[in-house]
Amino acid sequence: MKPLILITNDDGVAAKGLRVLDEIALKFADVIVMAPEYNASGASHSITSTRPLRVREVKNSDGLKVYACDGTPADCVKLAVEHFCPRQPDLVLSGINHGSNSSINVLYSGTMAAAIEASALGMTGVGISLLNHNPEADFSGCVLHVEKIIGQLLAHPIPQGIALNINIPRLDADNIKGIHICHAAQARWTDSFERRTDPQGRPYWWLTGKFERIDNDPESDENRLADGYISIVPILPDFTHYPSIDKLRWLEQ
Amino acid sequence: MKPLILITNDDGVAAKGLRVLDEIALKFADVIVMAPEYNASGASHSITSTRPLRVREVKNSDGLKVYACDGTPADCVKLAVEHFCPRQPDLVLSGINHGSNSSINVLYSGTMAAAIEASALGMTGVGISLLNHNPEADFSGCVLHVEKIIGQLLAHPIPQGIALNINIPRLDADNIKGIHICHAAQARWTDSFERRTDPQGRPYWWLTGKFERIDNDPESDENRLADGYISIVPILPDFTHYPSIDKLRWLEQ
Repeated sequence: MKPLILITNDDGVAAKGLRVLDEIALKFADVIVMAPEYNASGASHSITSTRPLRVREVKNSDGLKVYACDGTPADCVKLAVEHFCPRQPDLVLSGINHGSNSSINVLYSGTMAAAIEASALGMTGVGISLLNHNPEADFSGCVLHVEKIIGQLLAHPIPQGIALNINIPRLDADNIKGIHICHAAQARWTDSFERRTDPQGRPYWWLTGKFERIDNDPESDENRLADGYISIVPILPDFTHYPSIDKLRWLEQ
Repeated sequence: MKPLILITNDDGVAAKGLRVLDEIALKFADVIVMAPEYNASGASHSITSTRPLRVREVKNSDGLKVYACDGTPADCVKLAVEHFCPRQPDLVLSGINHGSNSSINVLYSGTMAAAIEASALGMTGVGISLLNHNPEADFSGCVLHVEKIIGQLLAHPIPQGIALNINIPRLDADNIKGIHICHAAQARWTDSFERRTDPQGRPYWWLTGKFERIDNDPESDENRLADGYISIVPILPDFTHYPSIDKLRWLEQ
């Protein structure tokens, strides 16, 4: 039997990066897509509990079924696996995201939340992002690399419960130097809101922000990407900082 | 100078748990509250980038300023620290949440996202949750415990970049056995969507779900809570699973 790949994203069902990923996945597997109706960038791991979800069939052809859902990326994974996949997918892919999800961005990313949700549910969840925010981004540089990685992941299992955060530099295929397995760089977004005044004189605030590195570790994803490598960070959705447990015992008093 | 405490939550500015926390914090500090206008449970670390934010002043009295914002809990922290706090808060508290944020729930929680955002910005971020979902929950059992913890946190610094995830069992104050610093239990939410049919015969799906433990570690937050203890999990917003890095080197080929 052919493998089954579930695909979602956070840029929405109409995004170019999603279509690129469909086409690559179809070379290996039957493909089911369940993606948000609209752009859900910055949705993080939000889920929809105050209203029910609706699903729209976009395409139903040989080997490829595409659905749009009015929920979040994490909703899409839960709903698709439970109600729209004939069996558990062999791989859950999220992307290809228009823009980076390296470092601290993984916190805010709907793309990575979908991959993490898949791994929490016992599947292999993989988020893939290109360092190019443009809606018309050129994905040609990353296609062969993504194809190779998907082939490897279908052939070899990765540790149970682990998701992968794959980021791809904005380079031609030949200029991508290779792949590095690495850890997330420490960083933060600062100077986040710009205050403006509307025509009635009332204030409003627009999200903006400056990406600020805390470390400069050459083995971090940020540094590997800057050096021209694809970065792959293994992700476990456990925020516990184990080294701090013993340092905080005084709070037990 | 009095300390400054910033408070937010994900249940919204009108939630009872928020008022309880304000009152406790006022015993120690000047307090600024910036909370979502509406219930943002399940908002996770989502941020608002496709529209600007508005802010409504709810209360401005001696020592206590309360604002409502039409953004997410993470938005509230970023915006309040940058534009509404006269100086960097000494402590950022989020809650008291109506319902548990133990274990995997931290992924979905807007309450914990706010605490994590504060720690990413270099402050001490603390999420506090009571294991009682009821909007009219009785917080009397936890008030003295929360007061004691806030006093300790103002007196002693915790490791830089670490947030705390505090969960409190639904017990009378005298029946709470103490505090344990511990790690998050491994768990997942399964059987997530219930399919229904609307009066026009069209399907829709409601989020539901069953909490399913993966481990049964006596030192996990779930077990400590079941034993009658307050659980405190130190949190670092780095999802990297370091032990998996070397196990995945084959992907570099």
